[in-house]
Amino acid sequence: MIEVYLDNGASTKIDPQVLKVMQPYLTEKYGNASALHSFGIDVKEALEKARKVIADSLGAKHQEIIFTSGGTESNNWALKGIAFANKEKGNHIITTKIEHDCVLESSKWLEKQGFKITYLDVDAEGFVNPADLEKAITPQTILVSIIHANNEIGTIQDLSKLYSICKKKKVLFHTDACQSYTKTELSANNADLITINAHKIHGPKGVGALYIKESTKIDIWQHGGGHEFKQRSGTENIHGIVGFAEAVKVALNNKKALQKMEKLRDKLIDGVLKIKDSRLNGPQERLVNNVNVSFSGIEGESLTGYLNEKGIAASTGSACSSKSLEASHVLLALGLNHEQAHGSLRLTLSRYTTEAEIDYVLEVLPQIVAKLRKISPLGRN
Amino acid sequence: MIEVYLDNGASTKIDPQVLKVMQPYLTEKYGNASALHSFGIDVKEALEKARKVIADSLGAKHQEIIFTSGGTESNNWALKGIAFANKEKGNHIITTKIEHDCVLESSKWLEKQGFKITYLDVDAEGFVNPADLEKAITPQTILVSIIHANNEIGTIQDLSKLYSICKKKKVLFHTDACQSYTKTELSANNADLITINAHKIHGPKGVGALYIKESTKIDIWQHGGGHEFKQRSGTENIHGIVGFAEAVKVALNNKKALQKMEKLRDKLIDGVLKIKDSRLNGPQERLVNNVNVSFSGIEGESLTGYLNEKGIAASTGSACSSKSLEASHVLLALGLNHEQAHGSLRLTLSRYTTEAEIDYVLEVLPQIVAKLRKISPLGRN
Repeated sequence: MIEVYLDNGASTKIDPQVLKVMQPYLTEKYGNASALHSFGIDVKEALEKARKVIADSLGAKHQEIIFTSGGTESNNWALKGIAFANKEKGNHIITTKIEHDCVLESSKWLEKQGFKITYLDVDAEGFVNPADLEKAITPQTILVSIIHANNEIGTIQDLSKLYSICKKKKVLFHTDACQSYTKTELSANNADLITINAHKIHGPKGVGALYIKESTKIDIWQHGGGHEFKQRSGTENIHGIVGFAEAVKVALNNKKALQKMEKLRDKLIDGVLKIKDSRLNGPQERLVNNVNVSFSGIEGESLTGYLNEKGIAASTGSACSSKSLEASHVLLALGLNHEQAHGSLRLTLSRYTTEAEIDYVLEVLPQIVAKLRKISPLGRN
Repeated sequence: MIEVYLDNGASTKIDPQVLKVMQPYLTEKYGNASALHSFGIDVKEALEKARKVIADSLGAKHQEIIFTSGGTESNNWALKGIAFANKEKGNHIITTKIEHDCVLESSKWLEKQGFKITYLDVDAEGFVNPADLEKAITPQTILVSIIHANNEIGTIQDLSKLYSICKKKKVLFHTDACQSYTKTELSANNADLITINAHKIHGPKGVGALYIKESTKIDIWQHGGGHEFKQRSGTENIHGIVGFAEAVKVALNNKKALQKMEKLRDKLIDGVLKIKDSRLNGPQERLVNNVNVSFSGIEGESLTGYLNEKGIAASTGSACSSKSLEASHVLLALGLNHEQAHGSLRLTLSRYTTEAEIDYVLEVLPQIVAKLRKISPLGRN
């Protein structure tokens, strides 16, 4: 059967070159990076080399990169660690209505702990209005957290503009860059804290990092033996970390892949929009691998189910919320009604995506939409 | 050069059979377990199979096993999650002076958040006196956390006795079982929360679990998309998780290895204690792979350095604290003075340890001790 994987926004295939570099750390190099003997020293060296690769990719300092177990941990830590460390200064945090669940749920938990959260609106394409941010900042504001490229609709915020407002107001700025990292420009000059991870960029699952600008006041969130410059404890997941760094290297050395991806993305968008009563969610200029479309009268869940039968892996909204039947909070924030927000389809490409695969999707998808419109109770309305 | 790895308390080699089972999840099975298409469903099935293996190993229910990024996360979560969820009931937590750093540092952080912590003393062999525990419990006590097998000295607490006290007093009981899991009896009947991890038992780094008895009130500590029965979010580290489960299977199917390990441990202890002015730290009946000895007049750091030159990987105390020059808090709690607590050597075996390796250590170690006693300023006193 044909297999077309278009759910790279959820997770990606490990690049063979990445796995090759990981292999020694899954076999003979099994020491603990904290140990003082040869087994440990070898691993420690690999750890610091990997850290340098990630630091360089952001224009950051070596000690500003702290490895974590992934994007969810990094986002949790950024919000809660900053909140708890700065609560004497103020108890107000600003984020948006289109963040990943891990930022939104962390925010809700912080509300229970006495913090006040402002959830900024976005425009119909998912952009935060910098003037709205500036207005929302009060003397009690300690942190602003805004997702870089949105995971559902691919809207890319202007970090430089948002950060300059935060700097002017002396408020810390965090961005979740899991979707954008290595796919669009991202620099330590444009945030105080940046969340990145490996499994969205053809690295392994279970590893990520938090960039923390030097002298940022943040509470430790995972206490213990004092790993990672005493900021995040736990035996380092060395095979994951070296794989993460290699994934970054491979991605940054292969910028042509981005151009190819962009072309295929545009071909896919153009083809899909030829289907009657379809709409593109999110802006035209968007994350290089993201397509998000709605078809009136059709539920996303049925659509992905039928696509799966044809060998096409896609999602409705983010992977995390795929099993809940709630409408996407991101699409609702754009102003879509509940029916529209239920009918979305996210197709996310990777550098492995081929033109033949896109052609196949464009052949199959219109048939499925037509079929579903015939049988769906929504379609018959 | 000869290589003898006797730092298995810090980390272990991945079993080849474990790696074999992990391999598909590092290559073609790269879906996100939350996704609804075939790539995701395959991974979800593997995830739940692995969970069942771990649950069965503890006599626990499927949904009582929550995967985490490792022992440090599980211990942090157990302490902080219970503390925050039950703070209306009380603000008192009891632990011991011989816990792993991640429990002690989490406790210190909780003190800053207004919780009161009692650190129980232990006897000269590292045992908690159950009567001390009972006396320490107050109406404000919400949690007791006591390490099962100590990571430095191998003392194994009687969980059944400690838990029965907690149950009688209606206080939750957590145990850190990272060192003991699969090496000695461990059951969900003897605790409300149990921390376990993979890389101490020939599984991969970066993965662990927290057993949480049904209907235990615990705050989520890592918020997000609602993975792991909505208790711990973050894309599941599937290669790590299937590797963890396989490591458990292999260990439990190979109980003979424990008998062999015990014999070699005893041979090592007997041989080492023939060195003049040496002492065994911890009890005679101890964790099957643990040896901890002190040599008067000698610093542990020098000892491990010289051993490393001879190809022997060992540690002084735990790996985490190896780079700090502080005396072991565990040995100090036994009543050793600072000099003695500085002079400890931890040798931790695995099922791969051979008799020839033990013979080699017993040949080399006395020579190194003699040499160090000649040159050490402590030795000359």
